[in-house]
Amino acid sequence: MNDTHTVPEKYITHRVTGEKGRAAKIAFPETEAAIADYLKQAAAQKQSVITVGASTGLTGATFPQTGEWLLSLEHYRNILALDEETLTLHVQSGVTLAEIQDYLEPTPYFYAPDPGSKQATIGGTAATNAGGMRAVKYGVTRENIRSMVVFLADGSKLAVGSLNNKDSSGYDLKDLFIGSEGTLGVITELGLKLRPKPAAKVSVVIGFEQLDDLAPVVYQILGSSLQPAALEFFDREAIRYAERFLAEDFLEIEGECFLLLTLDGSDEESVAQQLTQLSDASAKMKKQSFQPLREEQAQRIWRLRGAIGAGIEHVTQQEPLDVVVPINQITATIKRLRVVCLQSNLRAVFFGHAGDGNIHICLLREGLPQEEWEERLAVVLHQIYQEVAKRGGLPSAEHGIGLLKKPYFKEAIDPVKLQVMRQLKQALDPQNRLNPGKIFDITDK
Amino acid sequence: MNDTHTVPEKYITHRVTGEKGRAAKIAFPETEAAIADYLKQAAAQKQSVITVGASTGLTGATFPQTGEWLLSLEHYRNILALDEETLTLHVQSGVTLAEIQDYLEPTPYFYAPDPGSKQATIGGTAATNAGGMRAVKYGVTRENIRSMVVFLADGSKLAVGSLNNKDSSGYDLKDLFIGSEGTLGVITELGLKLRPKPAAKVSVVIGFEQLDDLAPVVYQILGSSLQPAALEFFDREAIRYAERFLAEDFLEIEGECFLLLTLDGSDEESVAQQLTQLSDASAKMKKQSFQPLREEQAQRIWRLRGAIGAGIEHVTQQEPLDVVVPINQITATIKRLRVVCLQSNLRAVFFGHAGDGNIHICLLREGLPQEEWEERLAVVLHQIYQEVAKRGGLPSAEHGIGLLKKPYFKEAIDPVKLQVMRQLKQALDPQNRLNPGKIFDITDK
Ligand SMILES: Cc1cc2nc3c(=O)[nH]c(=O)nc-3n(C[C@H](O)[C@H](O)[C@H](O)COP(=O)(O)OP(=O)(O)OC[C@H]3O[C@@H](n4cnc5c(N)ncnc54)[C@H](O)[C@@H]3O)c2cc1C
Ligand SMILES: Cc1cc2nc3c(=O)[nH]c(=O)nc-3n(C[C@H](O)[C@H](O)[C@H](O)COP(=O)(O)OP(=O)(O)OC[C@H]3O[C@@H](n4cnc5c(N)ncnc54)[C@H](O)[C@@H]3O)c2cc1C
Repeated sequence: MNDTHTVPEKYITHRVTGEKGRAAKIAFPETEAAIADYLKQAAAQKQSVITVGASTGLTGATFPQTGEWLLSLEHYRNILALDEETLTLHVQSGVTLAEIQDYLEPTPYFYAPDPGSKQATIGGTAATNAGGMRAVKYGVTRENIRSMVVFLADGSKLAVGSLNNKDSSGYDLKDLFIGSEGTLGVITELGLKLRPKPAAKVSVVIGFEQLDDLAPVVYQILGSSLQPAALEFFDREAIRYAERFLAEDFLEIEGECFLLLTLDGSDEESVAQQLTQLSDASAKMKKQSFQPLREEQAQRIWRLRGAIGAGIEHVTQQEPLDVVVPINQITATIKRLRVVCLQSNLRAVFFGHAGDGNIHICLLREGLPQEEWEERLAVVLHQIYQEVAKRGGLPSAEHGIGLLKKPYFKEAIDPVKLQVMRQLKQALDPQNRLNPGKIFDITDK
Repeated sequence: MNDTHTVPEKYITHRVTGEKGRAAKIAFPETEAAIADYLKQAAAQKQSVITVGASTGLTGATFPQTGEWLLSLEHYRNILALDEETLTLHVQSGVTLAEIQDYLEPTPYFYAPDPGSKQATIGGTAATNAGGMRAVKYGVTRENIRSMVVFLADGSKLAVGSLNNKDSSGYDLKDLFIGSEGTLGVITELGLKLRPKPAAKVSVVIGFEQLDDLAPVVYQILGSSLQPAALEFFDREAIRYAERFLAEDFLEIEGECFLLLTLDGSDEESVAQQLTQLSDASAKMKKQSFQPLREEQAQRIWRLRGAIGAGIEHVTQQEPLDVVVPINQITATIKRLRVVCLQSNLRAVFFGHAGDGNIHICLLREGLPQEEWEERLAVVLHQIYQEVAKRGGLPSAEHGIGLLKKPYFKEAIDPVKLQVMRQLKQALDPQNRLNPGKIFDITDK
């Protein structure tokens, strides 16, 4: 039998808003049979089930609103096999990113997706299609999963994807489950794509006076044969939160906003060549500084870049957004969104994955009373998502829709598309029992 | 109104078997409105619709069995826009691969997927998730489509995908339509991912005494930091069909079976470096020859490689297979399948995309009387697909299932997966009117 427990506080607390929800029970199954069992019991008793990974999600997607049953994969966490012939790592879905990184440390391989929280479970990153810094070269989670085992609402077991590198044999079910935020099935096992570790790399910071100077450089890099493994942007204000938080200094370098990029390759020579190519190209750029980093500098700067979010959270409550726009819209979007935030009287910090068009906006509460915070937030979010949609963008690049973005997603999405999503949900989960009310409502309300 | 015509012979003839089918009518719409109209008429009259591209498909997927209405996209063929900022080419679905290649010729960009028939429409390649030689580095069609417009069975219009590089905003509908062989919707527009053309490349032929020597080299290359843009294998027998057909000679080179690969890169220097890396690695290989090709040689050898299939078809009827197995299973699979063919008294030629585990098997009729051919074929196909499934492989890497592989697909596929496919089909096309009876039957029969 399943070991079901009374539900610890953590699982009914909304990570972003702090709200308390209500869950009937929670199970931490350790076997496939126990997972299937729990789902079948829930089906028999017409109960809804929320799958829970490490609860690091930023959209309230595991928040229980109506006394659902929780199914935590935290105890389903074995690394099953490293297959060096097909370069596949087989894991159970409760394994964390940190565990995968540790496991691969002594091997010549790495798993490319690298979202901020290393405590996230691999299943959770699949269910949200998590991104991270290396997506610009190596793709998001979707592109790095070969195969999965999924349990459906009725407890039946389904294998999707395979170790084959090509597949024109029927519908692509794997990609339907990836990014479905626990609403279509429970992911229990994954075959992860590994790659040989790059033998050499170098990071570079380029400083600019203003955003308008930075954007053309991004397009130029992406349109060239250079393939940076990371291509981030931030401004002085953003990096200062990290400096204070980590008590480490950024560079003494000219510029108000910055590109931070990594070039990697199979050997020192090829990386040196890429660096020359970048520096040649940058000769024509309207930049203020261009600084390749020594190894220990690079580590510090990447640490700082990674700590911007945490640095902000350390000093104020915030609402973290992860909008995305087509790459050629970045500057126009950020400039417009800055105005929107200013007009709403909310301070906001901007940074993100420039190579992907993925803009992180942290809206800062900074001591505002609850009611005022919520009111201003509602207004500004509405406007932000509208501006993003206008430019062909999407509400979420990597965190998912969950509960927090549901109203904005509904406004942004083509009604035919929403209808098709509902039809697919109904086909796979006819009683709407898997994470109901997340991403979208099955009926309009 | 649509211009509907009596149906020309070509559209009711099965490309592989020569059989004649039956279609009620055909339309060649030139506008979106005409496409929607035709679909709505069909819906009103409860008629089934088969979408037709260039009819180059190798699985009978456009073959009309029961008097369906045909919807040809051949006149829906405008190149709409080249967006150099997001590196996207917008096209209507009836544009051919040849037209896309010609259009991009004078630009610094290329569209990576390169399946054999350049007369295929881009919509057809999306509907079959076509592969080709460059998939090992640049991915198959799926990985090179950013966005699509799809018309559903009821004539409603749906936009899937987007120009954003990341997306965690709801279900991945784009990838459900890609590879669905006209059974879920009619693809009318596509946003194709472009890449900067590599500035330099070199091709190399490596000769081996036997298959057992070739396989470890493939694994070694794929496990290294080398990223060949193509990695093909064939034997002397296969290439001889092409030599006779094109009246051109292969190389004077030792070996019975061969790897043909291309290294590409941003400049001559980086390609030279890769070549050195390959040649160093190959020093330890059990090979008989290693020959980098001069530009005109490379062109000839690639021409020959591309003409193997046509060379075979020139001298005998054949059944072309495109099975795929996990990369570490290639040798074992080929060796076993050779025995299977021998035992069935059918001659077979093997070649394919070694870097993808994608094996092309051409089963040769060679003057066998129709009945015997069909009998032997039925037996051997059954066995081949069983052997492939046993090794974790799939019936189709790139051609699709269509009609020809339907019985074998049904045997190979997990019944739960088939059930899920049926549920999705029923959700999107409840009356089963879009290309019915292709890939799978909606009910068991
Ligand atoms: C400090 C910090 C930094 C972050 N940085 C990034 C970043 O750079 N990029 C990024 O993309 N995200 C980032 N995130 C967000 C978060 O880490 C990701 O969304 C992560 O994928 C969630 O994984 P989890 O295991 O915590 O899932 P949870 O939060 O437990 O669940 C998230 C969703 O996935 C579903 N789910 C979980 N496991 C399964 C399963 N096995 N089967 C089916 N559904 C399942 C849940 O139902 C829910 O809908 C960050 C979060 C934090 C706190
Ligand atoms: C000489 C030769 C070499 C080949 N080499 C390769 C190769 O290397 N790799 C490879 O993958 N394939 C190859 N093929 C197979 C073939 O070219 C591909 O399957 C191609 O994708 C089919 O395109 P088409 O436009 O001819 O489609 P069709 O044959 O007309 O149709 C194929 C399928 O797609 C559907 N379809 C077509 N257009 C649409 C649309 N707009 N919307 C929805 N559904 C649609 C049809 O209903 C059908 O199910 C080769 C074929 C030949 C003849």
